[in-house]
Amino acid sequence: MQDLSVNGERLWETIVETGKIGATPEGGITRLTLTDLDREVRDWFAGACKAAGCSVTVDEAGSIFARRAGKDNSRDPIAIGSHLDTQPLGGRFDGIAGVLSGLEILRTLEENGYTTESPLELINWTNEEGSRFSPAMLASGAFSGIYTLDFIYSTRDREGKSFREELERIGYLGEAPVGDHRLAGYFELHIEQGPILESEGLTIGVVTGAQGQLWYELTVTGRASHAGSTPMPVRKDAMLACARITVGVNRIALDHPPAAMSTVGLVEVTPNSRNVIPGRVFFTIDLRDPDEQVLLRMERETDSLVKQTGGESRTEIAMENVLKMMPMKFDETCVNVVRDAAERLGYRHRDMVSGPGHDALYIARVAPAALVFIPCEGGISHSEAESVRPDDLTAGATVLMHAVLEYDRRLAGAR
Amino acid sequence: MQDLSVNGERLWETIVETGKIGATPEGGITRLTLTDLDREVRDWFAGACKAAGCSVTVDEAGSIFARRAGKDNSRDPIAIGSHLDTQPLGGRFDGIAGVLSGLEILRTLEENGYTTESPLELINWTNEEGSRFSPAMLASGAFSGIYTLDFIYSTRDREGKSFREELERIGYLGEAPVGDHRLAGYFELHIEQGPILESEGLTIGVVTGAQGQLWYELTVTGRASHAGSTPMPVRKDAMLACARITVGVNRIALDHPPAAMSTVGLVEVTPNSRNVIPGRVFFTIDLRDPDEQVLLRMERETDSLVKQTGGESRTEIAMENVLKMMPMKFDETCVNVVRDAAERLGYRHRDMVSGPGHDALYIARVAPAALVFIPCEGGISHSEAESVRPDDLTAGATVLMHAVLEYDRRLAGAR
Repeated sequence: MQDLSVNGERLWETIVETGKIGATPEGGITRLTLTDLDREVRDWFAGACKAAGCSVTVDEAGSIFARRAGKDNSRDPIAIGSHLDTQPLGGRFDGIAGVLSGLEILRTLEENGYTTESPLELINWTNEEGSRFSPAMLASGAFSGIYTLDFIYSTRDREGKSFREELERIGYLGEAPVGDHRLAGYFELHIEQGPILESEGLTIGVVTGAQGQLWYELTVTGRASHAGSTPMPVRKDAMLACARITVGVNRIALDHPPAAMSTVGLVEVTPNSRNVIPGRVFFTIDLRDPDEQVLLRMERETDSLVKQTGGESRTEIAMENVLKMMPMKFDETCVNVVRDAAERLGYRHRDMVSGPGHDALYIARVAPAALVFIPCEGGISHSEAESVRPDDLTAGATVLMHAVLEYDRRLAGAR
Repeated sequence: MQDLSVNGERLWETIVETGKIGATPEGGITRLTLTDLDREVRDWFAGACKAAGCSVTVDEAGSIFARRAGKDNSRDPIAIGSHLDTQPLGGRFDGIAGVLSGLEILRTLEENGYTTESPLELINWTNEEGSRFSPAMLASGAFSGIYTLDFIYSTRDREGKSFREELERIGYLGEAPVGDHRLAGYFELHIEQGPILESEGLTIGVVTGAQGQLWYELTVTGRASHAGSTPMPVRKDAMLACARITVGVNRIALDHPPAAMSTVGLVEVTPNSRNVIPGRVFFTIDLRDPDEQVLLRMERETDSLVKQTGGESRTEIAMENVLKMMPMKFDETCVNVVRDAAERLGYRHRDMVSGPGHDALYIARVAPAALVFIPCEGGISHSEAESVRPDDLTAGATVLMHAVLEYDRRLAGAR
């Protein structure tokens, strides 16, 4: 069974097939969580899992669990998971590659009549992206006990629609209590979303941990007034304050090389008219670093930047921390079975730290977990230009499968 | 007839009545040009003018002309005009005060049986604001021969709807050719939209000319990528470039005291997600100064700022000049009859230069014109907080009426 391998062509076909749901002109996908398009891909996914011999349940957060029986179903399942939701104008692989690789593994085991000792579970987590409902990874966060169900139900998109009403609307408000069962292990495949593997000519990234990240939401309140008759000295320009902070947080990241990163990715100006001084600006800040001390220093520097800018620009600036993830490490055994699988299968690999957040980071708090990276072209992600080589995807899915099977054998042997 | 005065209470009632069309919670109005709300206020206005004894025609740009017969209708009409469209979250007086003062004057003349020598014409110009269709003052610009009908028909809002199709949709695509008749004179009343009159305790601003203004549209093209895995040195962050230019143009205005002004009022970020480096940003720049030389210097400084920023941020920046109005002066006779009326009526007044653009600035190119300012609270405009004292509005309308009547007498005497 060492030579058991996935069907790369079939896997690629599912990428192409589901990529049509929410397809964008430039070859990407816009499939925001809990939209009609999300419902469509969820229906497809549930059907495909049942066809592969799984029983499907949905929890109260809308996450989908496809269970494949093992030899001893009294054991906790070993899970494979990721997400099918995308960014606005996102790519065809972010999250999707992980879920569909899991599906391909279930299909491969089915047609080879391979039954694991422990049951297997393939999971599609709700709202990993966080671009419609913030913060990101809401459902895996709830499963891990980080967020209460009340909290995630109460989050709203920018139009004021709540997570719960949208979940109900698309028919995925499940009955299974969130976090109602334990996972013996959790494995996730994801595209690197960075340039390292490609630039070093490697196929597999063995992720040993993740950098920390901080998300903030800021609202600058100035005073809307006429651009042609309000003297510069008396202006309260909310956009000018936002611009100064945007330049300032960029400086803060540059001041903490080599790994620190900062981004202002979302900006909403009110009233947003060319001859009106903006009276209000809502925007976000994203800070990251693998070193907790550096991250906390950046947090303090951002705080004082915001205070100083509010004073200089005569505006009121409200700043809220909506996500705080400190740097973490994955379970040693899970990381080892991934590295061993890559080694045995002869794929060039390296250990690395994850830049982006992933559901695996949260699940790691309640189960042994690991994360497998594959290269993406130019390191580009969260973009319609996101691209993956079919061979790399096949390699990643194969490594994922053998890591899971080895982990399953070790658990059985350990008993 | 020197003691002829408008009915201030009736004028105020029309402000309150029409203010309900597009009313916002904070006491302002959102009534963008060529929307259903614009249609509603236009229908009300046309009806009110007919009831005041006028014949109403609409030109191909949707501007409404209400004609009141004079003793000698072979003469060119003397016009009063302004606009009924508003900014998003705009105020109840910007433009509206001018049109409704004109209506009040027609009503006053009607009930006093006063007939002018020349016919009078009250005009509601289409799309003065320019916040839905850019540039501003499209219809008065077409009437003045600045814009061709083809050009204004081809302008589109941010949703891609064209000026012409929206004009047709709301039923105001008239048959009168644009600029089909001459105006013997043009008088407009407007709120100052600045703090000078209020701070000096004056009631009337005699506007002798206007500052120049330049409008630009910029599109920054960077590369959308993941905020958590794209190293700072390789980023192409379109928002960072926009922020640097926003801070830079603010500096440019501050470097040209006392009158120079610069504003970045409209910003649209793509994909606009908190954990994605913005790949594209569309934004606007508004530059103003009463001195042509200073304005041209600011233009050159802005050009080099944009070129430099594009290089530093590794982004492509396209910049288009969409409005170029050089400083101008109003007709001496028209300005004098306004000043004389304020003086005779005993209102405290001063000569001043207009900061904002107004339809009068364009009409001044094809007819003798003048502009009357009244104070607004705190100088605030293009804001729901825009506020005017009823007494000041009554005073402005009275000055406007007597200026028009005196101008009418002078024209008759001149013959």
